[in-house]
Amino acid sequence: MSTAAVCRAFLGSCRAMAGVFPSLDAVRDWFAAKDRCHRFEVRQVPLAGLDQWSYAPGPLRLVHRTGRFFSIEGIRVETDFGPAPTWDQPIINQPEVGILGLLAREIDGVLHFLMQAKMEPGNVNILQLSPTVQATHSNYSRVHQGSTPRYLEYFTEPGLARVLLDQLQPEQGARFLRKRNRNMVVAVDGPVPMHEDFCWLTLGQIKALLAHDNIVNMDARTVVSLIPLADPDEPPNYGLVDGVTGFGLDIYLSFCRSDKERHTMDRLMAWLTDGKARHAMHVSPLPLDALRGWMVTDTDIRHESGLYFSVIGVDVAAKTRESTRWSQPLLHHKGEGLVGFLCQRHGGVLHFLVRGSLEPGNRDGMEIGPTVACSEVAARSRRAGAPRFLKQFLDPGDLVVRYDAVQSEEGGRFHHFQNRYMVVELPPGKHLDLPGHFIWMTLGQLWRMARHGHVSIEARNLMACLGLLETLP
Amino acid sequence: MSTAAVCRAFLGSCRAMAGVFPSLDAVRDWFAAKDRCHRFEVRQVPLAGLDQWSYAPGPLRLVHRTGRFFSIEGIRVETDFGPAPTWDQPIINQPEVGILGLLAREIDGVLHFLMQAKMEPGNVNILQLSPTVQATHSNYSRVHQGSTPRYLEYFTEPGLARVLLDQLQPEQGARFLRKRNRNMVVAVDGPVPMHEDFCWLTLGQIKALLAHDNIVNMDARTVVSLIPLADPDEPPNYGLVDGVTGFGLDIYLSFCRSDKERHTMDRLMAWLTDGKARHAMHVSPLPLDALRGWMVTDTDIRHESGLYFSVIGVDVAAKTRESTRWSQPLLHHKGEGLVGFLCQRHGGVLHFLVRGSLEPGNRDGMEIGPTVACSEVAARSRRAGAPRFLKQFLDPGDLVVRYDAVQSEEGGRFHHFQNRYMVVELPPGKHLDLPGHFIWMTLGQLWRMARHGHVSIEARNLMACLGLLETLP
Repeated sequence: MSTAAVCRAFLGSCRAMAGVFPSLDAVRDWFAAKDRCHRFEVRQVPLAGLDQWSYAPGPLRLVHRTGRFFSIEGIRVETDFGPAPTWDQPIINQPEVGILGLLAREIDGVLHFLMQAKMEPGNVNILQLSPTVQATHSNYSRVHQGSTPRYLEYFTEPGLARVLLDQLQPEQGARFLRKRNRNMVVAVDGPVPMHEDFCWLTLGQIKALLAHDNIVNMDARTVVSLIPLADPDEPPNYGLVDGVTGFGLDIYLSFCRSDKERHTMDRLMAWLTDGKARHAMHVSPLPLDALRGWMVTDTDIRHESGLYFSVIGVDVAAKTRESTRWSQPLLHHKGEGLVGFLCQRHGGVLHFLVRGSLEPGNRDGMEIGPTVACSEVAARSRRAGAPRFLKQFLDPGDLVVRYDAVQSEEGGRFHHFQNRYMVVELPPGKHLDLPGHFIWMTLGQLWRMARHGHVSIEARNLMACLGLLETLP
Repeated sequence: MSTAAVCRAFLGSCRAMAGVFPSLDAVRDWFAAKDRCHRFEVRQVPLAGLDQWSYAPGPLRLVHRTGRFFSIEGIRVETDFGPAPTWDQPIINQPEVGILGLLAREIDGVLHFLMQAKMEPGNVNILQLSPTVQATHSNYSRVHQGSTPRYLEYFTEPGLARVLLDQLQPEQGARFLRKRNRNMVVAVDGPVPMHEDFCWLTLGQIKALLAHDNIVNMDARTVVSLIPLADPDEPPNYGLVDGVTGFGLDIYLSFCRSDKERHTMDRLMAWLTDGKARHAMHVSPLPLDALRGWMVTDTDIRHESGLYFSVIGVDVAAKTRESTRWSQPLLHHKGEGLVGFLCQRHGGVLHFLVRGSLEPGNRDGMEIGPTVACSEVAARSRRAGAPRFLKQFLDPGDLVVRYDAVQSEEGGRFHHFQNRYMVVELPPGKHLDLPGHFIWMTLGQLWRMARHGHVSIEARNLMACLGLLETLP
């Protein structure tokens, strides 16, 4: 299947608001029914009360008895980039590559994606829609002979499905140490066995759900962000977007090949290379109890200022058919963050303002981030040194808000970690003074960069939210 | 300047066999004159006799007194990829990003590149042509107030030149630990101050010199490899290659956009991602004197089998105007290696057979390597387990040898390390059974992968040698 044909199938699915479910309301009814019968009790417990988890010495860190899953470790960060030259923090170390996979199938001429209603202990609302598969490496390498996640074989066994995309993508560099996951979309031609917690959605339905708070989970968003709505090598095909207007049409055109791009790909690569070479972030391991400013107790790990995040314990009772119970640490986030893209038409083509982003957990130095990614907005917007361009999101004035919804980060590692995601459009011609670590890119360019793992998860999450609808529901 | 315009300028330069030097003979005369007056004496000395360098304890390694430059350290390698599950070896640790830069200027309508006749102690013939600048990070960050390399400012000071390309590229993963350099091409519009060791060459002249043994050094080859002869986003423009025929035309067409590519970029990314996720290489530091099979003495560091490489000391007396003298370790390679691409026309478009390559020093797991990269061919071809497809290079039979020359690796770190570089073409339709870690790519696809740092230095070195000439000189 050619790239152009695959992209046409993606675009067609994005235009389809009806599919196996005849309407978005039908999807929401199905999800609400699932939500009513979920049985998940999450209770905060002291870290010392966690089953199987404990502090281990040399250097002090929080680990599972088996050494599996992940650990919480301490790091010291030193850098010449950004306002803070040094800080200490706990970070999640999970040195393995998982699979986040979407299974796709054409049904009645429209590509559908198999989504799962999945409970995760850290979500404010427990149940959200996840991709078909979220598997750790031990799941799919079958190191341990446990049950494997449903549908995993379509992603791991050659020949069962056609691979439409398979990319290594970074996770949050501020919270995960060098973590990446495979993001995959694979397609089957025939039916697959169905399970009650799974449903087939069109890309248009998924994008429409993304306009609502906390329905589509982070793992789904990162995979969806990599699905192109057009082949960036091809000029626009207006026949394919007949009836698409306004900002939705701008999104499509920004994916397409254009001679109106503000910068060439070579210029953008040079900008990124310069950022990577110019700025360094040195990360050295430290025992948790040696971290400056952090208090490590039997209850939790938290910063003495009350800011940033804390590591807490939760006890989870899942009353599914196989009644299971476990406890684990989660990173609790008290305040809400803000992740935003400024966009603007240049030469008639929509461009997005990206920012070089250097975080301690990044595998390869600077990544391409959104215009703004700011934790605890309420606290930080009041202080001096608030992030550049934050005010355009907090007080857009006459700018046009194109997207605005609250989404949760990974509920298997984070507790109540929510960010407000926004896309705000500047009028054409309105000038912004850009510091050197900001640059304009089209969506096609951003997608090409993302394909090679250069784009941060915050920026990808926003890319996922961009669809073809003119207005917010 | 648009990408298409830059690529046209590169192509035009590649077609030009005359420029500031009216002919290749004139270039070779200039180089021969430089070669006659070089004054470099290189003498092997025991490691214990090196000025400023010595073994340092905890863990044992070979270091410079200042801690600068580089160090030779020990590693243990464990992997599930390739024939050897584990081995120990010394490796070069040089944790900094240098600049390899070519300065370009249009002269009489043809883009020229400023090359330097540069002496390096490890080269069999001492003098070779290097890029305009080979600078370490301490050179260009001016950590120490020494003299900076000539022309460096064009690569580091914004506004002095236009950046045509700037990419982070990996060095030899079998010899360097996680080392990368910035590969840059920048262009000026006006004249620059000239120095007697520098000359302006067209890309065609550089490519023609690459058909000869040991004239163009490795640092020049890696930068040249990234210069595209066509914009891979554009279909062929036959008007630009009028008169180019045979294999030269195949090279041009293989750079261009085509609907005859064997695989889409998404398929190639999926192949690479699968290789990265499927195979791991675990590298742990070891003291030099704990390496299994290696003997560490006051004379040198060598393997008890006599194979692989050894670490030796050299004393260098450079009788240039500023008479300088220094001593340093180098990695000596006794046998000659072979680096080769098989190529074949598929659907009329030339494809190259690449191999997933996993080396201990790779920063990010599997890279895209050439069909064959084999050290000490004479020894290894006689043993069982010789690399797949090696025999097509050692005994091509009725296959067509398109390129065959001996080139040196980096003469500032390696002593007499030479590889035979070959490109061998299979007749169209001749079937090869490919193990899963081999795949066919066009040059345009290989170049797109290289832009993001996925292509090994061995493969890039071969890409540099591909020009528009029909036959070897």
